[in-house]
Amino acid sequence: MVQIKDLLQDGQVLRADGRGVDELRPVTIERNWTDAPEGSVLIQCGDTRVLCTATFTEGVPRWRRDSGLGWVTAEYAMLPRATAQRTDRESTRGKVGGRTHEISRLIGRVLRGVVDMKALGENQIQIDCDVLQADGGTRTTSITGAYVALVDAVEWAKKKHLIGENKKVIKDQVSAVSVGVIDGTPMLDLPYIEDSRAQTDMNVAMTGSGDFIEIQGTAEGAPYSRETLNTLLDLAAKGNKELQAAQKAALEQ
Amino acid sequence: MVQIKDLLQDGQVLRADGRGVDELRPVTIERNWTDAPEGSVLIQCGDTRVLCTATFTEGVPRWRRDSGLGWVTAEYAMLPRATAQRTDRESTRGKVGGRTHEISRLIGRVLRGVVDMKALGENQIQIDCDVLQADGGTRTTSITGAYVALVDAVEWAKKKHLIGENKKVIKDQVSAVSVGVIDGTPMLDLPYIEDSRAQTDMNVAMTGSGDFIEIQGTAEGAPYSRETLNTLLDLAAKGNKELQAAQKAALEQ
Amino acid sequence: MVQIKDLLQDGQVLRADGRGVDELRPVTIERNWTDAPEGSVLIQCGDTRVLCTATFTEGVPRWRRDSGLGWVTAEYAMLPRATAQRTDRESTRGKVGGRTHEISRLIGRVLRGVVDMKALGENQIQIDCDVLQADGGTRTTSITGAYVALVDAVEWAKKKHLIGENKKVIKDQVSAVSVGVIDGTPMLDLPYIEDSRAQTDMNVAMTGSGDFIEIQGTAEGAPYSRETLNTLLDLAAKGNKELQAAQKAALEQ
Amino acid sequence: MVQIKDLLQDGQVLRADGRGVDELRPVTIERNWTDAPEGSVLIQCGDTRVLCTATFTEGVPRWRRDSGLGWVTAEYAMLPRATAQRTDRESTRGKVGGRTHEISRLIGRVLRGVVDMKALGENQIQIDCDVLQADGGTRTTSITGAYVALVDAVEWAKKKHLIGENKKVIKDQVSAVSVGVIDGTPMLDLPYIEDSRAQTDMNVAMTGSGDFIEIQGTAEGAPYSRETLNTLLDLAAKGNKELQAAQKAALEQ
Amino acid sequence: MVQIKDLLQDGQVLRADGRGVDELRPVTIERNWTDAPEGSVLIQCGDTRVLCTATFTEGVPRWRRDSGLGWVTAEYAMLPRATAQRTDRESTRGKVGGRTHEISRLIGRVLRGVVDMKALGENQIQIDCDVLQADGGTRTTSITGAYVALVDAVEWAKKKHLIGENKKVIKDQVSAVSVGVIDGTPMLDLPYIEDSRAQTDMNVAMTGSGDFIEIQGTAEGAPYSRETLNTLLDLAAKGNKELQAAQKAALEQ
Amino acid sequence: MVQIKDLLQDGQVLRADGRGVDELRPVTIERNWTDAPEGSVLIQCGDTRVLCTATFTEGVPRWRRDSGLGWVTAEYAMLPRATAQRTDRESTRGKVGGRTHEISRLIGRVLRGVVDMKALGENQIQIDCDVLQADGGTRTTSITGAYVALVDAVEWAKKKHLIGENKKVIKDQVSAVSVGVIDGTPMLDLPYIEDSRAQTDMNVAMTGSGDFIEIQGTAEGAPYSRETLNTLLDLAAKGNKELQAAQKAALEQ
Repeated sequence: MVQIKDLLQDGQVLRADGRGVDELRPVTIERNWTDAPEGSVLIQCGDTRVLCTATFTEGVPRWRRDSGLGWVTAEYAMLPRATAQRTDRESTRGKVGGRTHEISRLIGRVLRGVVDMKALGENQIQIDCDVLQADGGTRTTSITGAYVALVDAVEWAKKKHLIGENKKVIKDQVSAVSVGVIDGTPMLDLPYIEDSRAQTDMNVAMTGSGDFIEIQGTAEGAPYSRETLNTLLDLAAKGNKELQAAQKAALEQ
Repeated sequence: MVQIKDLLQDGQVLRADGRGVDELRPVTIERNWTDAPEGSVLIQCGDTRVLCTATFTEGVPRWRRDSGLGWVTAEYAMLPRATAQRTDRESTRGKVGGRTHEISRLIGRVLRGVVDMKALGENQIQIDCDVLQADGGTRTTSITGAYVALVDAVEWAKKKHLIGENKKVIKDQVSAVSVGVIDGTPMLDLPYIEDSRAQTDMNVAMTGSGDFIEIQGTAEGAPYSRETLNTLLDLAAKGNKELQAAQKAALEQ
Repeated sequence: MVQIKDLLQDGQVLRADGRGVDELRPVTIERNWTDAPEGSVLIQCGDTRVLCTATFTEGVPRWRRDSGLGWVTAEYAMLPRATAQRTDRESTRGKVGGRTHEISRLIGRVLRGVVDMKALGENQIQIDCDVLQADGGTRTTSITGAYVALVDAVEWAKKKHLIGENKKVIKDQVSAVSVGVIDGTPMLDLPYIEDSRAQTDMNVAMTGSGDFIEIQGTAEGAPYSRETLNTLLDLAAKGNKELQAAQKAALEQ
Repeated sequence: MVQIKDLLQDGQVLRADGRGVDELRPVTIERNWTDAPEGSVLIQCGDTRVLCTATFTEGVPRWRRDSGLGWVTAEYAMLPRATAQRTDRESTRGKVGGRTHEISRLIGRVLRGVVDMKALGENQIQIDCDVLQADGGTRTTSITGAYVALVDAVEWAKKKHLIGENKKVIKDQVSAVSVGVIDGTPMLDLPYIEDSRAQTDMNVAMTGSGDFIEIQGTAEGAPYSRETLNTLLDLAAKGNKELQAAQKAALEQ
Repeated sequence: MVQIKDLLQDGQVLRADGRGVDELRPVTIERNWTDAPEGSVLIQCGDTRVLCTATFTEGVPRWRRDSGLGWVTAEYAMLPRATAQRTDRESTRGKVGGRTHEISRLIGRVLRGVVDMKALGENQIQIDCDVLQADGGTRTTSITGAYVALVDAVEWAKKKHLIGENKKVIKDQVSAVSVGVIDGTPMLDLPYIEDSRAQTDMNVAMTGSGDFIEIQGTAEGAPYSRETLNTLLDLAAKGNKELQAAQKAALEQ
Repeated sequence: MVQIKDLLQDGQVLRADGRGVDELRPVTIERNWTDAPEGSVLIQCGDTRVLCTATFTEGVPRWRRDSGLGWVTAEYAMLPRATAQRTDRESTRGKVGGRTHEISRLIGRVLRGVVDMKALGENQIQIDCDVLQADGGTRTTSITGAYVALVDAVEWAKKKHLIGENKKVIKDQVSAVSVGVIDGTPMLDLPYIEDSRAQTDMNVAMTGSGDFIEIQGTAEGAPYSRETLNTLLDLAAKGNKELQAAQKAALEQ
């Protein structure tokens, strides 16, 4: 493990892993990692590793019936030893924590933002993002991987004639990345070692057309100016463009 | 109740309540609304009415002990008939829902962003925001009211000599407001009737110095461009400036 | 806050607030305190302040269907800082406590005691009593306020033609008051400072005709004789008569 | 099983089991029914059968420490097939219901009403009342049986020198009985068949000296006058005197 | 209570209660112990005392409907003072523990193993085993008693013409017994004093024909050889034969 | 997916995957699959894939303190889409199901059976087995994989000098395998397609010395004779020997 002191040498900011401030960690996206789900993707961004599955079910929850519209929902969780310290299971504690709830809702919202519910018809897609190893950016990595699983599940449904062949269910591509301010310097794609000391931490989900679906920026450490915000959004735009290229490459295999 | 169709007349956007797109709803902030809490504020923004209390306790949670630092946390809840349809109590359902968790965490983070934990010392302030009537913007109204309750609780503690008289515990003022895009037009401070049909919904918490503490923008309805984002942030800056004036006026009484 | 020692001067019992032993605290009943509920009443008895709402819903729970009968139920809760010490939320603790259960059941029973379920028809009225500030007598204050909200909800339903105009749904008026024995002296309407040191504590709900709907008398401190019981019931009868006058005045506005 | 129609013959009220209106059902109290508990009593009142155990533990709950005072608490439960229809277990449902909470609290309060906490010292007695068969009056039967188990547990503690031999821990005897109004007639000790159709249902706990410890009278069916109340209390006084004789007889064996 | 040291005298193994290593404790089986259930059996094996009830209900759970098949399920629980130390209620703790789950599932599986679900038809039998006093072997005693309650419930249903008179619902008899290795010696039917120090503990459920329905053998203390396993199974076969004789005798009364 | 009818051709039993009745599915054991845990093993038996991690912590749970003994415990869980149909998360349902509890307890017991708690000292090892893909035998695969993770965690602790270099913490090797009877034929290592139609299903955990640690055999479908039991145990012995060879090979890399 690299120590925080390694980050700063001779007054110049050097990232522990040698990346430039606007560089992503290496990304790999592996489809069909397990057999059962309609979409099953193992995504790795640096050392963060998430299994994203998409479950296609005919029919929608009761409150959505007879609307002609589909539904997409998501659940996020971490294995107990995805982290350096073991985290108690939420099943054992008997309730889902606030952080888990917040992230599950985020993933669901973002994916719904690119799905045409009318084209999906009265079908439901349930996304599950289980973090096998956590090193920062687990929620953005989940979104990026879940998009690929979602596409696979929709393709599966078309092959099974559960959705019409020519329906455009997915309106646009979507990915997400984290940006943050560390020692005053805006940076792209923070691993845990950086994330935990960031003054500002922002997660940005963007479409293939470069529009925003979700911006979540928190500055518990130090409020940030409009100017810094603009730099962060530039970094996020660059990162998302590269992640979307990786998604496309995976989907073309 | 005004119908949605009233919003649009002769092709021009007219808000149901006659406001301009960049106008806040009327705000009233009443301090000491109940007797027991160290800070107790009833805030109304339009028809949204929230009771914000601040509880000052000596000592901090176990994980924070012997750090010399204080802690600020928040819980948000709605009374069952704050809304048009009765909502089941979370106590009866046996668990706190995802939305409640998400908002509680948001309020806590934003307030911590303006508190100097070292100046607070090993003391805890618990914020409770209970929505008595809900008409959009309950989370931002909660933040704006909670700030005033927080200031009162800190003053109370100084009078009781639990915090040194000259400690600058509150580093800056903070307020929050919602903005959104309706039928393509960015607007400030959405009531429920607008909020429920917004394509984009963004909550922005800003300091007295005009910096950002939290931006949460969701576009489940329609992704938004960088340009629209800029307009939304301009509106939010205007709204927050006015809310901060109302906070100051209340605190000077 | 008045101290307990103030209660006793020169050997004679003097109530901290100067009341006679058979006097009620000041009562105010404000209708339509919030807009959404079919009945919404803010009641204050001394410093105890409760928001009582009544929600009218067409239809009844499953076990009651096709009986031709309506249903009335109630839920009671306290805001965390209604009390001098903050109480943890029951939603956060994940379960409703015994005291809350007991009071909710009491309120429901008492109100059902004056409702003609056949005249109500297959409709449900849900009462919510949320204590905003607690200074003794929260359960009796809840009952007294809830009765007014109940009447308003029934009137609302008649105006909406959900209940026949000439149905006598409410069979009789109902209110409740606490009585207790302090230092051997029976007294009416105990604030917290008295309640917490009462040897006997009794809650009495009575109809407008002067009959009993519920008597709950506990003597954990010191068992009481039949004679003392009679004095307590006399005090309760006097108190309830006055509360019912206040209810009538509020309903006539 | 006797049908309700059997209760009424030729216009005259006849109780299904042939009892007079002021007669108790047969009572048996068996001590040491199981071996492990410090007090273990199987009590039967008619067909209602309750196992009451008393667990003596040195020390008191945290909030009571260093007070020099003891504590008595109670828990009530029903086996799933104590009733004609199987009731789901509260353990399986994951929470204790309102009725169970209410009764557990009642039993605890009543027993504490006859215990001198100073004489008990910093020791705790936990009462468990498990209904093996239910035919009305389970809460009053529980109290009557629990008193005997409590006495046995105190005696056990004296023999073990955990309480001083000559401490008068139990200040007075206590028992409880139900009374009610059926078809306008007040009656003593209602079995389920009567209880379920009573207009008024009252549980009365009394000491050996004839004072009241708890009165709980509900008139969901029909409010009752002060006169009827007096008759009910007379019946309860007679019933409790007889139950206390049965307790004494059991304790003298 | 016998102390562990009494078990070993002069180097020879002597069981605390004087039994031979292949002897059962005394067994009594009392039918119709309570009135409400369709089958109600109080079984005692030594000091272990379990109330086993069988509830017959027409219809099956949703997932089993229209299959033409019945269902048998079981729940096991202990009263708080069945044990030497009081155990907290699982209802109060808000969840059923792992041990309880495990035993409930075991009892259900074993009984289903002797029931012809087709002959039972779309009816459900729910077994409840509540341990009133625990001295080892509570799960095996539960199975042995539950079998008798099951037979009674089936007979009841035949008399009520809910099952055809000549349907052979119960395919075979079943009972269960524990065996274990103590200080190297295999023994039959362990009371708590032995069970808690057994190196190996095995529960064996067998049919009247001498076949196995369930073997559960754990050797947390010391793994056992194939040879020891054979001896244990011989002991279990002897014990089950005797328990089945006791079941038959009870059912013939 | 192979259909059940493929299993039977020309009257002879043919396993869907072409294996002989006494053959294991292919096994792979990959160590250090994730970085954080002290032991981290991805094991695959056929299509069943389980991530087994071992967390080493200094200190033991409160009830074990000052005993000089260590503790080993285990938790088992399945990802929602490990199975053909999505299973709801236990965290979301708010409680751990009976099957999960049963398996977690089994894994813990078996591993404790080969650990010398005195040699481990007051340290705790927590095993987590998360099923990523389920195709029968998930509990036995978990045990086999967890053993390897356990060894790695002990080695890690020795390197960190938390356990003495020459302590023999692991007393023996352990693995587990399933056996069952299908259409009357005993078979080794059942995948889901076989398991779900087995008349008898038995899980057998054995040490490197060939002794038994746990036998769990259920015959809900059809009770089995002593002779069949012997055949099943022979198959299990063969399977476990081969699994232990695979464990050794993995540990030697």
